[in-house]
Amino acid sequence: MNNRHKVAVIMGSDSDLPTLKPLFKTLKKFDIDFDAKVCSAHRTPDKAASLAKNAKADGFEVIIAAAGKAAHLPGVLAAFTTLPVIGIPIMSSTMDGLDSLLSIVQMPSGIPVATVAIDGAENAAILAAQIIAVADEEMSLKLQRFKEELAKKVEDKNTALMAKLAEI
Amino acid sequence: MNNRHKVAVIMGSDSDLPTLKPLFKTLKKFDIDFDAKVCSAHRTPDKAASLAKNAKADGFEVIIAAAGKAAHLPGVLAAFTTLPVIGIPIMSSTMDGLDSLLSIVQMPSGIPVATVAIDGAENAAILAAQIIAVADEEMSLKLQRFKEELAKKVEDKNTALMAKLAEI
Amino acid sequence: MNNRHKVAVIMGSDSDLPTLKPLFKTLKKFDIDFDAKVCSAHRTPDKAASLAKNAKADGFEVIIAAAGKAAHLPGVLAAFTTLPVIGIPIMSSTMDGLDSLLSIVQMPSGIPVATVAIDGAENAAILAAQIIAVADEEMSLKLQRFKEELAKKVEDKNTALMAKLAEI
Amino acid sequence: MNNRHKVAVIMGSDSDLPTLKPLFKTLKKFDIDFDAKVCSAHRTPDKAASLAKNAKADGFEVIIAAAGKAAHLPGVLAAFTTLPVIGIPIMSSTMDGLDSLLSIVQMPSGIPVATVAIDGAENAAILAAQIIAVADEEMSLKLQRFKEELAKKVEDKNTALMAKLAEI
Amino acid sequence: MNNRHKVAVIMGSDSDLPTLKPLFKTLKKFDIDFDAKVCSAHRTPDKAASLAKNAKADGFEVIIAAAGKAAHLPGVLAAFTTLPVIGIPIMSSTMDGLDSLLSIVQMPSGIPVATVAIDGAENAAILAAQIIAVADEEMSLKLQRFKEELAKKVEDKNTALMAKLAEI
Amino acid sequence: MNNRHKVAVIMGSDSDLPTLKPLFKTLKKFDIDFDAKVCSAHRTPDKAASLAKNAKADGFEVIIAAAGKAAHLPGVLAAFTTLPVIGIPIMSSTMDGLDSLLSIVQMPSGIPVATVAIDGAENAAILAAQIIAVADEEMSLKLQRFKEELAKKVEDKNTALMAKLAEI
Amino acid sequence: MNNRHKVAVIMGSDSDLPTLKPLFKTLKKFDIDFDAKVCSAHRTPDKAASLAKNAKADGFEVIIAAAGKAAHLPGVLAAFTTLPVIGIPIMSSTMDGLDSLLSIVQMPSGIPVATVAIDGAENAAILAAQIIAVADEEMSLKLQRFKEELAKKVEDKNTALMAKLAEI
Amino acid sequence: MNNRHKVAVIMGSDSDLPTLKPLFKTLKKFDIDFDAKVCSAHRTPDKAASLAKNAKADGFEVIIAAAGKAAHLPGVLAAFTTLPVIGIPIMSSTMDGLDSLLSIVQMPSGIPVATVAIDGAENAAILAAQIIAVADEEMSLKLQRFKEELAKKVEDKNTALMAKLAEI
Repeated sequence: MNNRHKVAVIMGSDSDLPTLKPLFKTLKKFDIDFDAKVCSAHRTPDKAASLAKNAKADGFEVIIAAAGKAAHLPGVLAAFTTLPVIGIPIMSSTMDGLDSLLSIVQMPSGIPVATVAIDGAENAAILAAQIIAVADEEMSLKLQRFKEELAKKVEDKNTALMAKLAEI
Repeated sequence: MNNRHKVAVIMGSDSDLPTLKPLFKTLKKFDIDFDAKVCSAHRTPDKAASLAKNAKADGFEVIIAAAGKAAHLPGVLAAFTTLPVIGIPIMSSTMDGLDSLLSIVQMPSGIPVATVAIDGAENAAILAAQIIAVADEEMSLKLQRFKEELAKKVEDKNTALMAKLAEI
Repeated sequence: MNNRHKVAVIMGSDSDLPTLKPLFKTLKKFDIDFDAKVCSAHRTPDKAASLAKNAKADGFEVIIAAAGKAAHLPGVLAAFTTLPVIGIPIMSSTMDGLDSLLSIVQMPSGIPVATVAIDGAENAAILAAQIIAVADEEMSLKLQRFKEELAKKVEDKNTALMAKLAEI
Repeated sequence: MNNRHKVAVIMGSDSDLPTLKPLFKTLKKFDIDFDAKVCSAHRTPDKAASLAKNAKADGFEVIIAAAGKAAHLPGVLAAFTTLPVIGIPIMSSTMDGLDSLLSIVQMPSGIPVATVAIDGAENAAILAAQIIAVADEEMSLKLQRFKEELAKKVEDKNTALMAKLAEI
Repeated sequence: MNNRHKVAVIMGSDSDLPTLKPLFKTLKKFDIDFDAKVCSAHRTPDKAASLAKNAKADGFEVIIAAAGKAAHLPGVLAAFTTLPVIGIPIMSSTMDGLDSLLSIVQMPSGIPVATVAIDGAENAAILAAQIIAVADEEMSLKLQRFKEELAKKVEDKNTALMAKLAEI
Repeated sequence: MNNRHKVAVIMGSDSDLPTLKPLFKTLKKFDIDFDAKVCSAHRTPDKAASLAKNAKADGFEVIIAAAGKAAHLPGVLAAFTTLPVIGIPIMSSTMDGLDSLLSIVQMPSGIPVATVAIDGAENAAILAAQIIAVADEEMSLKLQRFKEELAKKVEDKNTALMAKLAEI
Repeated sequence: MNNRHKVAVIMGSDSDLPTLKPLFKTLKKFDIDFDAKVCSAHRTPDKAASLAKNAKADGFEVIIAAAGKAAHLPGVLAAFTTLPVIGIPIMSSTMDGLDSLLSIVQMPSGIPVATVAIDGAENAAILAAQIIAVADEEMSLKLQRFKEELAKKVEDKNTALMAKLAEI
Repeated sequence: MNNRHKVAVIMGSDSDLPTLKPLFKTLKKFDIDFDAKVCSAHRTPDKAASLAKNAKADGFEVIIAAAGKAAHLPGVLAAFTTLPVIGIPIMSSTMDGLDSLLSIVQMPSGIPVATVAIDGAENAAILAAQIIAVADEEMSLKLQRFKEELAKKVEDKNTALMAKLAEI
């Protein structure tokens, strides 16, 4: 029997893939299954609508959507589902990512998108894990261990800093 | 027989109506018929898709869409039609309208939205008339006369300025 | 027996209360219990840490935090918990809310905050409901009905628009 | 007999040419003739005025103008013609293109410029085709096929994504 | 015989008049004659060109131009004259005046506009006086006295401050 | 006898020199003498004050000042002189030059700085020539010829464009 | 004998006084003497230089300077003293205070200004107290008590919140 | 006996070290001891709280904290101490450092952070020295000599400029 959690990852363009690698690595780290798709709010709008409408019935618990420039994708998916939608603003070549951030976060009342930082791929995965953990104590423990690892890594860097400072 | 041109006006919220009044007045001035609808990209997404898909068959030549904040509406309509879509960014209570401007104008390659100024309702109507005039000489003449009226009004203001300056 | 879901609402200042009213109304609408507290990341930092550390054990499933200016509160709470933290940037008197938006959304890798629009109180509540609904089918149905109501309201506004347009 | 549509492309500087290549390729794709000129609103203002004044009589249906920094060119051309003018803000070395975007889009009432995204050369060509298609059913069919190709390309990328994801 | 200096003041819209009052008062204070006109770069472009082309022959030494939003007027005038053109960005209802500032100041190489602060009407007049004073020792002395008055006023305010502080 | 005009060029840091090369070339082109100095508003404030106080007596007609980041130099010089001060905002490594632009242009009433574009070195020199030309007909003729050269160069580029377009 | 600490408060304009009231109240609360002066970096630059040069000899330990728009005052004072200078950006009528913030904070290497929030008058006073407390244990204890009061006030607001929430 | 002053330097990430090198060099130049630590407001929040709470007792006189993106670290440390906290906004890969600047400087009333320029590492060290110098005449003399060196370096650059200008 497959009891694993499942997240839908939708990216507006395959050019976003390098930015999104930490997302996939982190989902794997938390043993979360995912379906990843390239799907555009503007070039394949019917497919976007269909993916979002069926997401819950298809067993997804969270949708993660990444998009750049006039980044409508997360909002468009959110329009068609009651699942939580996490939006990742991708930095485009102009405007430093401010355009995608505002397009994703400034949603009208009624249709939220849970927005993370510009290019914040890893955090989108962690947020998905946190959402899943609300009703899954095992995931919650994984997150607790992850938090401890984060702190441990900072301590390791702190140790390394001493050597580096000696060189200044 | 009705030979009049027809424009679809879609607004994301009825609270945009005061800002849009000059749009309707100007369409009337140019004898352009219009159907106006409140329709949200996020709250009534299926209707938005349907309006855009059928717009050409329904006899519309141009779509004008106005929206604030994460103003996805013009882009979402453009995704479903080959008609020119004119987008009006509406100034929201925060961000001075920069959010709606960027959400509307920064469309990805393949799906343009013809964007006018923030709260630029009148210009959206004039742009629609200019688009229609490409193949309608009478509309072109109306635009020419409109341009002359604009210049005339500036001259009237210029005359009025003299009196006002005397008071300074 | 009390089976109701529980959300912690933390606001950085009591001056944010008027902006947050729709948050409380919406939580009530979805029959979600909440504890609301004024707690500052900077003036009562130990209490903020303590609230976040104990939130899970205290039965909370989601934390919603609202703050203005250098809005550290949501990020500071997220540092001490594995629960999902929803951040609401509050528009301050200067900077149009851009300062609070960037302070809340631009979190470093490892510690996400699910950010909603500036002053997006209602959406924070809906996002909390969506997160809870991941494992609660009844909440999911409420969200589905809410989505239908939203669409219905747009249609009502559409009807009202016809009368208003006649006056232009 | 030459029945082909004709578009005037005016660029403020020849340094904009690399950014504009997709514009010319897309016009060719849609079998739209074009005249391209370097013409500056500030260095050759009389020529700019003359080009715009004569554009309609010269058989042009749409004007596309690209400019950077204080990008006055599209607006200056629009002042002298009733043809639709499409403006492309070019990203300059400073300000991320925000200066050209605002200079082009924030036109006063009476004189619209149909603004596309910063460096949005391809979309300017597509918008020109959409405007022409309002009265040309064949162009409309080309646009419909173009839309289908766009969707097809997204699907191809989607397929390619599967292979790439296996490597993560 | 009239030996007085003469400045042309061109405003894009008569709605800018209240903002420009200090400009006229300051020109009078420095005994500089002026011709003030409402003239739009977009609505009356031929007149704008004509005003600028003839400005030198008409005896003007400096042109001051004020405009809001996509404030092309100062740059358009500068295109047609070798006289120094001073540009005043007017704060429009959206964008805090950033749009007009960037449209005026970011001029391309070859055609400068001497830009003053947003709504900086008084400073435009003083700058005109400074330019005139380069070859007019009497104007230079007036500017020196004006500078002394400015300092005197600051001292007066300083004295007044003491009384106000006692009330705190 | 030396009848040549003289301009003082003050730069906040010698790192600005590459950006300023067109300034010096253009001053030479117009046969304007210049004294160039590195002088900081903050590191050598007394020297800055002294340079500005003596500038008129030292025979300078215009001061050009370039500075980056919190670019106080032009305003500080303007405080101590009645000569026209031209400010060039230099793009710093962060903030795209917006910081220097606002620091230079947003001067308080009474003390204008004639601001040109970010990194607008050539235009600062042209503006100086325009100011000098107010009372020097020969300089005015040079500017007229310069304007004609500018137009000629655009035409040359236009010719070159034809060849380049054939390659697309 | 007068052992009290002394702070110089310099404001660019007396119009900043209402914004600065909390500054004076807080200095009094911490029993810190102050001299307050209106002094402009641009209108009374010699006085500004003189105030800063003599500040240390005059017994001041910290300088607090407030200014709006191109807010050069804090940086100009810092140029002439080795005392710590605290800068308060004042929100001007345009630009939301971003202009003054950048003008104050983006100081070049060598001459820091300790910048507080836009309109952050109270915090400037507290920072002055913190600086003084580095070598004054009594002031340090006052700050500790002030911190406890801050926390206490948050708790009082928290109690008041309960009553307010009951009304929603 | 060790009479040396001691400053705590806390950086949010070891990736900030290259930007911070001038900070350490400048502290050494002023003979100020320092403890440098990597410590994250979000990954090691308890350690951050503990460092700040104990800083005074541990003999530190000033805390310097550097952080990027949603740079909460300086504010979080300031919440737990009455020592002056100097904040250095680090430019992140997106947003030009505006996010970190606003997150650090826009602190709420009661808890100031003395903010220096984006990437302003050297100035943070100088500001620390200025704060220490309030009660240490020897440090004050070092700062005076440092100021003279700064001026000397500008003069050296000025001399070098002459040679460079000859090459233009």
